Amino acid sequence: SMATTDILLTWNLPTLNLDKVAPNLKWIHCIGAGVEHLLPMDWLPDEIILTNNTGVHKDKAGVSGLMAVLMLCNRIPSIVTNQRERHYEQLYGSPIAGSTIVIVGTGGLGGATAKMLEPHGPYIIGVNRQGQPVDGCNKVVTVDKLDEVLPLADILYLALPVTPETRELINQQRLNLLKPSCGIVNIGRQSATDYEAICEMLKTNKLAGALLDVFTPEPIASNSYLWNVPNLIITPHVLADDAEKYIPTTLDLFMCNLENF
Amino acid sequence: SMATTDILLTWNLPTLNLDKVAPNLKWIHCIGAGVEHLLPMDWLPDEIILTNNTGVHKDKAGVSGLMAVLMLCNRIPSIVTNQRERHYEQLYGSPIAGSTIVIVGTGGLGGATAKMLEPHGPYIIGVNRQGQPVDGCNKVVTVDKLDEVLPLADILYLALPVTPETRELINQQRLNLLKPSCGIVNIGRQSATDYEAICEMLKTNKLAGALLDVFTPEPIASNSYLWNVPNLIITPHVLADDAEKYIPTTLDLFMCNLENF
Repeated sequence: SMATTDILLTWNLPTLNLDKVAPNLKWIHCIGAGVEHLLPMDWLPDEIILTNNTGVHKDKAGVSGLMAVLMLCNRIPSIVTNQRERHYEQLYGSPIAGSTIVIVGTGGLGGATAKMLEPHGPYIIGVNRQGQPVDGCNKVVTVDKLDEVLPLADILYLALPVTPETRELINQQRLNLLKPSCGIVNIGRQSATDYEAICEMLKTNKLAGALLDVFTPEPIASNSYLWNVPNLIITPHVLADDAEKYIPTTLDLFMCNLENF
Repeated sequence: SMATTDILLTWNLPTLNLDKVAPNLKWIHCIGAGVEHLLPMDWLPDEIILTNNTGVHKDKAGVSGLMAVLMLCNRIPSIVTNQRERHYEQLYGSPIAGSTIVIVGTGGLGGATAKMLEPHGPYIIGVNRQGQPVDGCNKVVTVDKLDEVLPLADILYLALPVTPETRELINQQRLNLLKPSCGIVNIGRQSATDYEAICEMLKTNKLAGALLDVFTPEPIASNSYLWNVPNLIITPHVLADDAEKYIPTTLDLFMCNLENF
């Protein structure tokens, strides 16, 4: 029973009649970073604090981001597609040094990736709402300048949360602005990005490769069109999560918040 | 005709009767790093200098080595196998920080990889002939201590040339010393490593994953057993080669040698 609960550590929760279900509740800590499943927040009484796991993912996400970018530089999605077809062809990559990487969404995930990429010498353009500087980015532009930077990208790195502004931000029209040699990584929510358009472009060589980590819904059904799209690697929502460190890091964050609380 | 050639820049060459075919020849620069196809060197007259492309591969190999290790930490070979089978399963990786990486062969390729891995915080054990220190390695042991360090490896990174001493060095007995959670990368020659044993262990979950880059012979035939081994990624001998920079870097090395010559 939640009748006497003061603090709730959870991923999801019954939001209906919360003041009756848990009249003592003062603080909810959501153990994920995305809280779109709790929107709109009209169920949340003013006196209850809601916190999320912002920052818990960022170490893992930064290293995974570096891995994903290197995989695209080295054409691993095409190499894996060739392996599936028992076809040996020496596809050479391009160096990450000197490449242009556009990171759309420079929060915990995108920001951590920029910092990890920086020592390898790419030119990194960050895109965010306010255009505020980001550690590791050579340049940051506001989201209304997105169409100007997309044609420059050798790698497009998407790390967007679900918000009304990000919904379908990376649509077919914007994808058409990319070079055919461009590779895409998506570690943010699917709702920001037109996956069907990306897959069609991969099939027709209008994009060089992609690595997609997040899907709606998950798990992906076994009969989904996604599985055997050429030059696409599907990772099962794991790039920002760390099996060994997730719980201890979450508890560290919670304990730190508990002191403040 | 090679009759008046002084200097030869080549990957392969006719070694038979070289003094008759190219009587003026003073210097051969081999544009690869491996020269095993020219062994034994009894065809090489004493007065002809033979140089190779040592060092040309190392920048690319270091970054590729980092990518390959991160792919194994993140269980990408198993994730790609699952994709092939239309199977969605959240396989979480282990952090590179704190993992133990054993690098066997610390020449140009292995040494460059150690340097690239170091900032990510693994414990790196190098293995070489003399046990001489290697930049980036926490510890270096001589090859006769190999059996003592193999059981410690979370990742076994092989970067061995073809020499009589490396032949079948990584055999079934030594592979049996690895943890079942260990991943293997081979960027060196196949002759050092028992690929059939690795593949059998991958099929029976005695190894977690592998990324193999070099094969004998190449290309791999379309009916090879290798293509659909589970938890194996095959890259087509590309990890140490850089399409854009290989020729300019080779020419830089050659010009530098030419001055000395």
